[in-house]
Amino acid sequence: MQIRTDLAMESRDCAAEISGVTSRTLRHDGVEEIQVVIETEEAERALGKPRGKYITLCHPGILHDSAADRMTLARCVSQALTGLLPPFGDLMVVGLGNRHVTADALGSRVVEDMLVTRHMKAVSDAELRGRLRGVCAVAPGVLGITGMETAEMVQGIVEKVRPAAVIAIDALAARDSGRICTTVQITDTGIQPGSGVGNHRRGLTKDTLGVPVIAIGVPMVVYAAVIARDALGLLLSDAGLAETEHEEAMDGLIDRVTKTGLGELVVTPREVDELVGRVARILADGLNMALQPRLSEEEIQLLSHDGL
Amino acid sequence: MQIRTDLAMESRDCAAEISGVTSRTLRHDGVEEIQVVIETEEAERALGKPRGKYITLCHPGILHDSAADRMTLARCVSQALTGLLPPFGDLMVVGLGNRHVTADALGSRVVEDMLVTRHMKAVSDAELRGRLRGVCAVAPGVLGITGMETAEMVQGIVEKVRPAAVIAIDALAARDSGRICTTVQITDTGIQPGSGVGNHRRGLTKDTLGVPVIAIGVPMVVYAAVIARDALGLLLSDAGLAETEHEEAMDGLIDRVTKTGLGELVVTPREVDELVGRVARILADGLNMALQPRLSEEEIQLLSHDGL
Amino acid sequence: MQIRTDLAMESRDCAAEISGVTSRTLRHDGVEEIQVVIETEEAERALGKPRGKYITLCHPGILHDSAADRMTLARCVSQALTGLLPPFGDLMVVGLGNRHVTADALGSRVVEDMLVTRHMKAVSDAELRGRLRGVCAVAPGVLGITGMETAEMVQGIVEKVRPAAVIAIDALAARDSGRICTTVQITDTGIQPGSGVGNHRRGLTKDTLGVPVIAIGVPMVVYAAVIARDALGLLLSDAGLAETEHEEAMDGLIDRVTKTGLGELVVTPREVDELVGRVARILADGLNMALQPRLSEEEIQLLSHDGL
Amino acid sequence: MQIRTDLAMESRDCAAEISGVTSRTLRHDGVEEIQVVIETEEAERALGKPRGKYITLCHPGILHDSAADRMTLARCVSQALTGLLPPFGDLMVVGLGNRHVTADALGSRVVEDMLVTRHMKAVSDAELRGRLRGVCAVAPGVLGITGMETAEMVQGIVEKVRPAAVIAIDALAARDSGRICTTVQITDTGIQPGSGVGNHRRGLTKDTLGVPVIAIGVPMVVYAAVIARDALGLLLSDAGLAETEHEEAMDGLIDRVTKTGLGELVVTPREVDELVGRVARILADGLNMALQPRLSEEEIQLLSHDGL
Repeated sequence: MQIRTDLAMESRDCAAEISGVTSRTLRHDGVEEIQVVIETEEAERALGKPRGKYITLCHPGILHDSAADRMTLARCVSQALTGLLPPFGDLMVVGLGNRHVTADALGSRVVEDMLVTRHMKAVSDAELRGRLRGVCAVAPGVLGITGMETAEMVQGIVEKVRPAAVIAIDALAARDSGRICTTVQITDTGIQPGSGVGNHRRGLTKDTLGVPVIAIGVPMVVYAAVIARDALGLLLSDAGLAETEHEEAMDGLIDRVTKTGLGELVVTPREVDELVGRVARILADGLNMALQPRLSEEEIQLLSHDGL
Repeated sequence: MQIRTDLAMESRDCAAEISGVTSRTLRHDGVEEIQVVIETEEAERALGKPRGKYITLCHPGILHDSAADRMTLARCVSQALTGLLPPFGDLMVVGLGNRHVTADALGSRVVEDMLVTRHMKAVSDAELRGRLRGVCAVAPGVLGITGMETAEMVQGIVEKVRPAAVIAIDALAARDSGRICTTVQITDTGIQPGSGVGNHRRGLTKDTLGVPVIAIGVPMVVYAAVIARDALGLLLSDAGLAETEHEEAMDGLIDRVTKTGLGELVVTPREVDELVGRVARILADGLNMALQPRLSEEEIQLLSHDGL
Repeated sequence: MQIRTDLAMESRDCAAEISGVTSRTLRHDGVEEIQVVIETEEAERALGKPRGKYITLCHPGILHDSAADRMTLARCVSQALTGLLPPFGDLMVVGLGNRHVTADALGSRVVEDMLVTRHMKAVSDAELRGRLRGVCAVAPGVLGITGMETAEMVQGIVEKVRPAAVIAIDALAARDSGRICTTVQITDTGIQPGSGVGNHRRGLTKDTLGVPVIAIGVPMVVYAAVIARDALGLLLSDAGLAETEHEEAMDGLIDRVTKTGLGELVVTPREVDELVGRVARILADGLNMALQPRLSEEEIQLLSHDGL
Repeated sequence: MQIRTDLAMESRDCAAEISGVTSRTLRHDGVEEIQVVIETEEAERALGKPRGKYITLCHPGILHDSAADRMTLARCVSQALTGLLPPFGDLMVVGLGNRHVTADALGSRVVEDMLVTRHMKAVSDAELRGRLRGVCAVAPGVLGITGMETAEMVQGIVEKVRPAAVIAIDALAARDSGRICTTVQITDTGIQPGSGVGNHRRGLTKDTLGVPVIAIGVPMVVYAAVIARDALGLLLSDAGLAETEHEEAMDGLIDRVTKTGLGELVVTPREVDELVGRVARILADGLNMALQPRLSEEEIQLLSHDGL
């Protein structure tokens, strides 16, 4: 049983020695930054993740820290993102997921806090206008609500608006509950089919959209099966038994524990409604800084909460 | 001063004798149905409304009536709409307006109650599947929030999804406060530039989208200037004076009364938050019936509130 | 390690043979009804639940069934509740929990759908008025938001309003994930200290409020530790080992698996936002029927969604 | 016809020369502060407002100004409020109005942003704890939703919690549309029966609650009749006619213009949903500063958005 994760760094952990994968870890301002580059087709297959760059920012205590400390993480997001952005042209932020499902609402919450400027070029004061990069943003909703694939809608909009790149925001599923709300993954590989909390069916990539797609994701849930599997794994390892020899038995047990008639069970912090708001704010601050490098942090705070 | 109205029947009232306009009034089930057809370019200019059919359904007491009586109006909406729909092909419902502004949220509220079926063709049971018409729905949001023109986004999506027609839902501004929440206008002319509560800037018409556009609108506000003007008009008429001779003076007075620094003042019922929900439900019921003629009313109620 | 449950029937299951506990199981209309009566102080201690009646209604498939079938469960709720209500006097419905936390919002969602009539005695038409029982409703919020204990606020309001009984609605934590959203517990023992999804600290009982308190609860989460424990228990039992001999080791493992910095992890269906709305509607329908026995089901539907 | 206003300064304007009323006007930081004291029973009757202090803060451009400028108004609110607070004891903030009606939601929105500390005395760190004043907050909802008078509920809660004073927040109706969202009235006379956007029926005063009641209100609407009346008044005055001689005729005209079947029509800015959020934030900032004088502005910002 392959337990699902949307985090490249967790895939890497599961598959320690693979050629074609480089990774390095930096530490600054209390944030751990893990850079993973998947370089070959072979590594792609081994990790189940496409070739490209994956930057993971971790800050375990971030959600209990002060607003000032959270701004630190926002700045790290901004910096990591800046290296992946095209130098010129309008940018489109796409918030994925279902606004009506708390753990899947991260994308649409970030879109609500974005500093949207693309339509402002003609109206703002000239000095400010000269410093704005054009940004538009949309949260298209999920298939069950619209009757349309997200990818289909985004393709149509991208063809009209022709941004230089798309930045897609999504809630992820992780392998380790300690990752929930504490880890940000930024990648230039776009959104893969089947990823995300809500199992969005199709991908959003350079291949499908015709423009570079940068994806930013934060784990909001782990699947309940993970918790059961972890408990069993620890028990076996304490007993000196190898997990690999008991895989089938474990899968059977996990199935019996987590099967319900209610759809998949997810494990999530009790306070997830509040946490998703805080994480959305960190990401929006980070995005606004990266997308508007000629505005000061103060100007961004002012404009993003007061409108232009 | 031209006081703005989005209702063709109000335009017609202002301009009684124009050739090229035909209208007739029916009455059934407590509903007054006014059909206006604007046939010539001359009539188009005189009324400030494009050539086409306008069906207006009025039911003054509808909002205080029982759920059963409201279903009567939903059936009238369904019937009027049915005559304008193409016989085959998928349909796309587009909810216009700003979800975050109560009086402008009608379109997105209707979208939330639509029976969305386009993605269901492969999964439902065969008998039911055979009776479903493909419907998709989207509420793209307004320019100030997305940085993109609604028309731009809808064009892009329509080009991908290729529906047989678009049905656009919008909150309107009327001339007469008695029209608020009691009148439904259905037209095959689409959405005109500058119409709607929120002054959406561009139109959604067959010309811009390449497919027929049916627009459904309900007045949610009148502009405050209307109230001032009405009071003055009555006073003049009571005094035996002709309104037309005092236009300029009146405009000056109205300006002094209604000019504030807060943007346009609108007149709206105090209970507008609740009313918009009721009207949205009537429209969604009417649309679901017209769009799914091979489902019974019971099936529609069941499916639209429980999901498929 | 005592895994927490708010369901008396789960406590009973854990402690099979206790004198002073009677229980019987009925089956009707697809609903399983378990009646547990805790009669002695000894049984109270053994089960960790106060003396009184506990009626548990289970309908595993209820959330996937039709609206008509859901009305069946609402009728069962109504019937069970009717037997516990005082024959005369106004009733107060209290929705517990935190409106801003999805899994804890059940109480406040039910309050929103209640047919509130206490203030209507003077204004409705005489015939209808004669058939209405006075009902008021409040969702006071949680300590962290108000700075006041829920019990403190409810006490103050009850002393002013002097209802004949209080009916408290709460989201529960269960021991078995199969109970989530499929089980309704109704008891005349009130709300116990420390129960509920959000660990409300004080109780709401006849002792604290001075009037009978009927509590209605539905499990919305199980704690993540439960999933880990279940997996381990199954493994041990498959290996022919007794769970009781390995308790300490299991507790250690569970702790290592479920400890995070984010507060307690809960296991919940991915679609909990939608499910809480459906459950709230079933409870509100059941309550409205029990509290207004002289109204027909049609009148209740009409009045509760259209206002009086 | 007495056109209704909840602002004492507007009552004063209508009745220029009354003994027993003193008023003075200050100007600082772009804010106009009008202090009205109603000292005698005679003045009370003439103005239709009870004896006491009324401080009105006006800043016409406030809503278009920067966040920094809005903080200026928050500081003025804090200063005016500080002079009316009892020196010791816990304080209770009561948000009046209907959360589900945008123009009436101000009170409950302010409550959501309050720094609530009463329950924190035992848990915070000692140094911070020593500097906190105990504050609790509640938004009890309106009669039509709860079946209970707001005054009844607040009385009950006050008797349990025994705060040193109540601070009640309410949305007001004004006489002049220029006052909407630009004027804050602070008074030590409490909430008067019949005031507020939603016509709350009973008062909240020292007489009814047994503790001092400070009321803070901001106009969110004017009634549509006001706009009609203003237009007529201007017309008459331009024509050299005295308004007083045509009162009856005017009332008849206004009635014909503004009478609809939808309940009272109100005039409100089209962007009222957004404006109510901005005003709520200004008031919450001002209240938090006044209620926690030993915290710095930075600490208040941090604590009120991150929790304690």
